[in-house]
Amino acid sequence: MYRTHTCGELRINNIGQEVTLAGWVQRSREMGGMTFVDLRDRFGITQLAFNSEDNDALNKSSRQLGREFVIQIVGEVIERSSKNTNLPTGDIEIKVKTLNVLNAAKTPPFTIENETDGGDELRMQYRYLDIRRNVIQDKLRLRNKVALETRKYLDSIHFMDVETPYLIKSTPEGARDFVVPSRMNPGEFYALPQSPQTFKQLLMVSGIDRYYQIVKCFRDEDLRADRQPEFTQIDCEMSFVEQEDILNTFEGLIKHLFKTCRNIEFEGDFPRMTYAEAMERYGSDKPDIRFGMEFNNLNSVVKNKGFKIFDEAELVLGIVAEDCAVYTRKQLDKLTDWVKRPQIGAQGMVYVKYNEDGSLKSSVDKFYSQEDLKEWVELCGAKPGDLILVLSGETDKVRKQMNELRLHMGDELGLRNPNEFKPLWVLDFPLLEWDEDTQRYHAMHHPFTSPKKEDVGLLTEDPGKARANAYDLAMNGVELGGGSIRIHDKELQSRMFDLLGFTKEQAAEQFGFLMNAFEFGAPPHGGIAFGLDRLVATMGGADSIRDFIAFPKNNSGRDVMINAPANLDEDQLQELSLAVKKS
Amino acid sequence: MYRTHTCGELRINNIGQEVTLAGWVQRSREMGGMTFVDLRDRFGITQLAFNSEDNDALNKSSRQLGREFVIQIVGEVIERSSKNTNLPTGDIEIKVKTLNVLNAAKTPPFTIENETDGGDELRMQYRYLDIRRNVIQDKLRLRNKVALETRKYLDSIHFMDVETPYLIKSTPEGARDFVVPSRMNPGEFYALPQSPQTFKQLLMVSGIDRYYQIVKCFRDEDLRADRQPEFTQIDCEMSFVEQEDILNTFEGLIKHLFKTCRNIEFEGDFPRMTYAEAMERYGSDKPDIRFGMEFNNLNSVVKNKGFKIFDEAELVLGIVAEDCAVYTRKQLDKLTDWVKRPQIGAQGMVYVKYNEDGSLKSSVDKFYSQEDLKEWVELCGAKPGDLILVLSGETDKVRKQMNELRLHMGDELGLRNPNEFKPLWVLDFPLLEWDEDTQRYHAMHHPFTSPKKEDVGLLTEDPGKARANAYDLAMNGVELGGGSIRIHDKELQSRMFDLLGFTKEQAAEQFGFLMNAFEFGAPPHGGIAFGLDRLVATMGGADSIRDFIAFPKNNSGRDVMINAPANLDEDQLQELSLAVKKS
Repeated sequence: MYRTHTCGELRINNIGQEVTLAGWVQRSREMGGMTFVDLRDRFGITQLAFNSEDNDALNKSSRQLGREFVIQIVGEVIERSSKNTNLPTGDIEIKVKTLNVLNAAKTPPFTIENETDGGDELRMQYRYLDIRRNVIQDKLRLRNKVALETRKYLDSIHFMDVETPYLIKSTPEGARDFVVPSRMNPGEFYALPQSPQTFKQLLMVSGIDRYYQIVKCFRDEDLRADRQPEFTQIDCEMSFVEQEDILNTFEGLIKHLFKTCRNIEFEGDFPRMTYAEAMERYGSDKPDIRFGMEFNNLNSVVKNKGFKIFDEAELVLGIVAEDCAVYTRKQLDKLTDWVKRPQIGAQGMVYVKYNEDGSLKSSVDKFYSQEDLKEWVELCGAKPGDLILVLSGETDKVRKQMNELRLHMGDELGLRNPNEFKPLWVLDFPLLEWDEDTQRYHAMHHPFTSPKKEDVGLLTEDPGKARANAYDLAMNGVELGGGSIRIHDKELQSRMFDLLGFTKEQAAEQFGFLMNAFEFGAPPHGGIAFGLDRLVATMGGADSIRDFIAFPKNNSGRDVMINAPANLDEDQLQELSLAVKKS
Repeated sequence: MYRTHTCGELRINNIGQEVTLAGWVQRSREMGGMTFVDLRDRFGITQLAFNSEDNDALNKSSRQLGREFVIQIVGEVIERSSKNTNLPTGDIEIKVKTLNVLNAAKTPPFTIENETDGGDELRMQYRYLDIRRNVIQDKLRLRNKVALETRKYLDSIHFMDVETPYLIKSTPEGARDFVVPSRMNPGEFYALPQSPQTFKQLLMVSGIDRYYQIVKCFRDEDLRADRQPEFTQIDCEMSFVEQEDILNTFEGLIKHLFKTCRNIEFEGDFPRMTYAEAMERYGSDKPDIRFGMEFNNLNSVVKNKGFKIFDEAELVLGIVAEDCAVYTRKQLDKLTDWVKRPQIGAQGMVYVKYNEDGSLKSSVDKFYSQEDLKEWVELCGAKPGDLILVLSGETDKVRKQMNELRLHMGDELGLRNPNEFKPLWVLDFPLLEWDEDTQRYHAMHHPFTSPKKEDVGLLTEDPGKARANAYDLAMNGVELGGGSIRIHDKELQSRMFDLLGFTKEQAAEQFGFLMNAFEFGAPPHGGIAFGLDRLVATMGGADSIRDFIAFPKNNSGRDVMINAPANLDEDQLQELSLAVKKS
């Protein structure tokens, strides 16, 4: 071992000991004949002291050390004359006797400090230096802890970690697969799993009873910001359970993780809300309930006053921004521009200022009297000093737009405290969504999700209305995870595939093994999967998952550090019976 | 929840309770008006009792239940009249009040018993039924426990679990990569990692200090028996360490795993042996030291007696099979045939019987007198009643053949007890191997392995003689893991790439990021990786890894259950800018 102690370990009671330390030069300061070097490793920082009076040559050597040099020193632990209370090792320093440069370092392309001068692209290119920064290591440390505590908790309640295969079969349903050509079976391909869904269901048929896995999954999607082609799931499945059992079990997990990893305790049960209610009140299936500003349906008070836009709108929604009646024209114009951006896509925005003096001022005074506006204010529960923001249009669209506006206002008004955590179970998702492009139903969750017992009849009568035994856990406006009670009956599964437009042959070819398995005694089962990247980022109070992943890819799916993907040798292609055919 | 208790939970003190159980029908027996059903789940078996006197209809229903039906029952826990001491639940049974068939089952294609009538191919096709068997579940349970205990142990000594990417870059060095076409970067490919080697080294440059990961790795090799295209590694790396630190740390891990997972404690330190010694004494770099039968070099006593084969042989080796002088001609002929099989490839085998009466009988009596043979016997340390088996030829070949013969004799004589565990560190591996085909050196371990300090000079003078700071942990004739102290100096790494025949450009293109990283302050570091599949199989006393993997592939790399790999749609190929070009 190159050291007797780490750089975060020595304290006042080590004084007098001879120690050997190794690490990186964080910074150094010269003060007259003295040189002070901060030596850093993963565990902390220890100050090294050199003195020209004691050893002039050694002191001179210490002044040759550059930032990020890797050194090893032997010295005596002594008490510091001026203590640093910000450092756990701040009471002591090392009076160095010998200095050994283990590896020199070029000057890094950005400073290795919590606040760095490196831009995103540069940091990604030199990610191995970026990870030296404490702010990044803290995120990886949190991830490590969350993963291990997840395992400990699930193990303690009899979940078994079972590894499922990575080289599986492509299914055209769902997102696009990454595929892997098979050299031994020319012309054939494996696919990388988008999730271990079918395998975990097979494990329930196998009687594993409780399964979990922390597992990489892959999706070949056009990457939006903060999406990664490979991501990690906490994937779980249980037998002989109903929805209530899953919710309780995994509420337990989330509470355990916050307790052990963030020292945060939740009071009482996580609140629950149906999908329908969430859409009505927040326009989102993952509402951020850290703040109010709920939707108010203004249809009953805005129609038939000559304002054509509202008269023709399917839905008119208002939200109350508290104490914002003071917003200037400029601020309101800016908000209007914001909702009109193509990403949001609103046609315009109406506002009503409820002034402190009780007067009302709106952008539609031409159509609505003070009495009319008074009705709005009452319906919305606004108080003097508040501002009402109104959007209108088709139900789905206006909800989506208003959700964005609400979150934006939440950010503007500082209502989204990253260190406040508000979980919410969202229940009773629709089973199917109608897809206009393909003119057929798609599974909202996936084709293995069971309909609610009371809605099975709807599968024939009005499939779009059927609700699923599906649930999501939302937190702070983010979907942490979701799952469902599965179909465990071959007939029902068959009907689902019909509804989703599979021919018998397609269903058999793609999922025959699962349907066959259901014939040999499948237990009732259900499960859930959490996105680990997203969970850890949320627990860390961050919006972006990028820094919680050691080696992330950029928005074009490239690893700029190793420069992947890359061309293959012609030989390799030939071995795989493949030719590149760019169009 | 469909149950109040599992099928492994109820005991004598539960008598009188009303319980709900759910599980699979293992078997049922009719005895007069009584029906007994064994209900099974992952946790155990509980006996259900039905009685026509109490409820004739219910008793009749119970007689309709087939093997592997999934049922739910409500009933009262009662004391059994004839207890079953082989079952933890054997003191009680359930007097059933209501019976609910949750799912019927077709008769399974093989019996769900520890001893099954299913062949390998059938079991793999219906792997989800195979896993219902206790003998398979036990193996997956052991794997689960080994993985979790590995994590706990490494975490307790400050190793951090860091996930490295699966979509990386192909490198022509080493085994063949599986590749993944990138749709977003037409004509370019990712590769799946053969190991996270370069990433874990980068994490050391990042200051992570101690890294581990239990991670899937991929190798596109022509599959030998018991090789899988995807396999799992316990992958570890440490900074500021020397070889001794790695050996101690991971000896600790292995001891912890055997203690916690098998309740086996090793006495003292694991023995160590150099590669050179292992090859000389056992002809193997992973010798099975559960038994002796070491190699004896007979060169000094067999030459110049007119036996041309020995005279021309580079090496003549003898092993002693204790108490086997009684072997019949037939047995000896069979052994000779065995070593002459193409898999072993010996030209023939010479034997010497050292009879109980002190007389000697050999297959080469024509050339060697009793006095000559007496010298052999003394050199080999054989005693009356023993048999000496002799092979000869080129050093490397004869060692390999004799290793096979030794292991075969060990099996024959019952010297390889699967429940005895003999670890052995094998040290000082050669750095390079000369490859006749390509007429150049290959890295024996990998190109990042450091030469022994005292052998650095040999890199110029006689590279083939240089020893590496590389080590393997062998157990019972199996390589459980291996690793090395890495090169952390750009210059030395560069020289290694030269020696291995890389041009500067190739080295820069493939490993430029690592060599660059070494310029920014790389710490001395080293690591090790264990094959989890192999480790668990060895701990489970099994030769084959197959049953320790939930969903293994067959020897053609196929998953016969899901039928992967498979053809892709033409659309998918087009999206990937690929065409299949079978030759």
